[in-house]
Amino acid sequence: MYALTYDGTTARVDPEYPTPKPASGEALVQVLLAGICSTDLEILRGYAGFSGVLGHEFIGVVVTCIDQPDLVGQRVAGEINIGCGECAFCVRGIREHCLRRQVVGIRARDGVFAQFVALPIANLHVVPENVPDESAVFTEPLAAALRVLEQVDIQPADRIAVIGAGRLGQLVARSLAGAGAELVAVGRQMTSRNLTLLRSAGIATAARGSLPHGWADVVVDCTGSPAGFADALDLVRSQGTIVLKSTYHSAAEVDMSRVVVDEIQVIGSRCGPFDAALEALASGQVDPRPLIEATYPLAQGLEALDYAARSGVLKVLLQP
Amino acid sequence: MYALTYDGTTARVDPEYPTPKPASGEALVQVLLAGICSTDLEILRGYAGFSGVLGHEFIGVVVTCIDQPDLVGQRVAGEINIGCGECAFCVRGIREHCLRRQVVGIRARDGVFAQFVALPIANLHVVPENVPDESAVFTEPLAAALRVLEQVDIQPADRIAVIGAGRLGQLVARSLAGAGAELVAVGRQMTSRNLTLLRSAGIATAARGSLPHGWADVVVDCTGSPAGFADALDLVRSQGTIVLKSTYHSAAEVDMSRVVVDEIQVIGSRCGPFDAALEALASGQVDPRPLIEATYPLAQGLEALDYAARSGVLKVLLQP
Repeated sequence: MYALTYDGTTARVDPEYPTPKPASGEALVQVLLAGICSTDLEILRGYAGFSGVLGHEFIGVVVTCIDQPDLVGQRVAGEINIGCGECAFCVRGIREHCLRRQVVGIRARDGVFAQFVALPIANLHVVPENVPDESAVFTEPLAAALRVLEQVDIQPADRIAVIGAGRLGQLVARSLAGAGAELVAVGRQMTSRNLTLLRSAGIATAARGSLPHGWADVVVDCTGSPAGFADALDLVRSQGTIVLKSTYHSAAEVDMSRVVVDEIQVIGSRCGPFDAALEALASGQVDPRPLIEATYPLAQGLEALDYAARSGVLKVLLQP
Repeated sequence: MYALTYDGTTARVDPEYPTPKPASGEALVQVLLAGICSTDLEILRGYAGFSGVLGHEFIGVVVTCIDQPDLVGQRVAGEINIGCGECAFCVRGIREHCLRRQVVGIRARDGVFAQFVALPIANLHVVPENVPDESAVFTEPLAAALRVLEQVDIQPADRIAVIGAGRLGQLVARSLAGAGAELVAVGRQMTSRNLTLLRSAGIATAARGSLPHGWADVVVDCTGSPAGFADALDLVRSQGTIVLKSTYHSAAEVDMSRVVVDEIQVIGSRCGPFDAALEALASGQVDPRPLIEATYPLAQGLEALDYAARSGVLKVLLQP
């Protein structure tokens, strides 16, 4: 099959990558659409030390499933963490923190930038009929965005700043728009395409540096840059909360004294609830389709990665 | 009066510093004993940009108090934050986060390394009779240690690591010893005086690097060093909590990706409850006196600062 692979140094499209063979308890899924995420681009810069088939955002259709044949033909989104099933985290059902976990396209497990992917049945979520492929392909990043609502108890009187108006920031801002609090998305320039897109979704925006120091009760950092944490520290009030969403391949120079003196709470935030994401898509509460910039055939995967890496570009899809 | 002052460059003992005149609502307190804290030493390295009389840990006796004469003659400990009384934090009684606050010996307010200090009555706590001066002088740092228990909901099954066995780490470990969880204090060497002191207080100890990665549910960083956060990140489990207690005058190189991927919660922690601290001292739950290394007369304040700055030295007191 065709697959977009990375060997630790170079990404390439392999036309003869072996089609995966589903293990017991797994399904073989034909990938219909896949999305390029900033994490994929960070992997190409050394993040996570991954090699194999790239990609973890997808919508597909089950083609083989010996253990649950009624899944065959169903459209599915797939959770990306595969736990050992035995450790303290897996026993509590938190497979995304299993210490021996595989992560699709990120750690020790082939990803979805391919014609087929094998996944445990437990990871699959059937996509409601009224959610088109172009929306369903956002299930994984939207779930990650919705994770913020699981971690922070947003109050109606809260002021929330989402900094970074890129791929993830767009989804986080859209996810928090219905939380009932005052929400402002912060980007580099008011005239930027990304902030304009957010305003057209009814979300208030501000340019970086224009909100007062300590304005926000909650800041969600989606910048994907080490500088984002410094901006978040400037924006959050004393005893406020910073949610860190983005990973990057470098250490940051951070003034942790501000965290101590102002008793700020910093919460790391990664994967989120697929059911809630599919519900938000099915109900129309979040429509991520305006984020799609381009759809490339898988054979042009390298061009797609290049395009996705350009500054300001939002979601680039791959069609196997 | 005698006072140990800092002008932004040099610390000196001034024998003729003007005795403070209490404003309305304030009391004049004669300082009986004062303690040197790591923050004082950081101020001498530029932290907080302070100049004036140094010091914020003390026990004293009220000598003048027009607005509440029954306080005269009482032994008191004093909270160190003086709020504006009007801002959103002050209105909620959280004067330690007032944006216009003065902080005794740290920000825009003379400190306690002096014969006398003027403080708002609202900041004073009468010390129970059975608490000797040598214990009461620890009220402020012990309150800061007990702040951890206000911020983190410790569970009986939790494993807690306190890293850093210096001044603050000693008090934090002693404060958490009664919380019912498994507690280990982590220091540089098992044979060090500071870890030995903790063991003699019945607290389990470990050398840095000897506990497994991800061992702790909760890590309290009391190292006072930027490297402490990296150690804390190594020790805490996924979805665990790091409490940052120590401030220092430099930014740290921090791998925030670990915080995101493992969904770690980082909580800044500063000032704490004086009432709880005085209760812990009065009940004997915490006896801080083994931490006292030396007591200097105020006139030898510079020698006291030098001694307190030596590696491994715990509490050095000043007697005005």
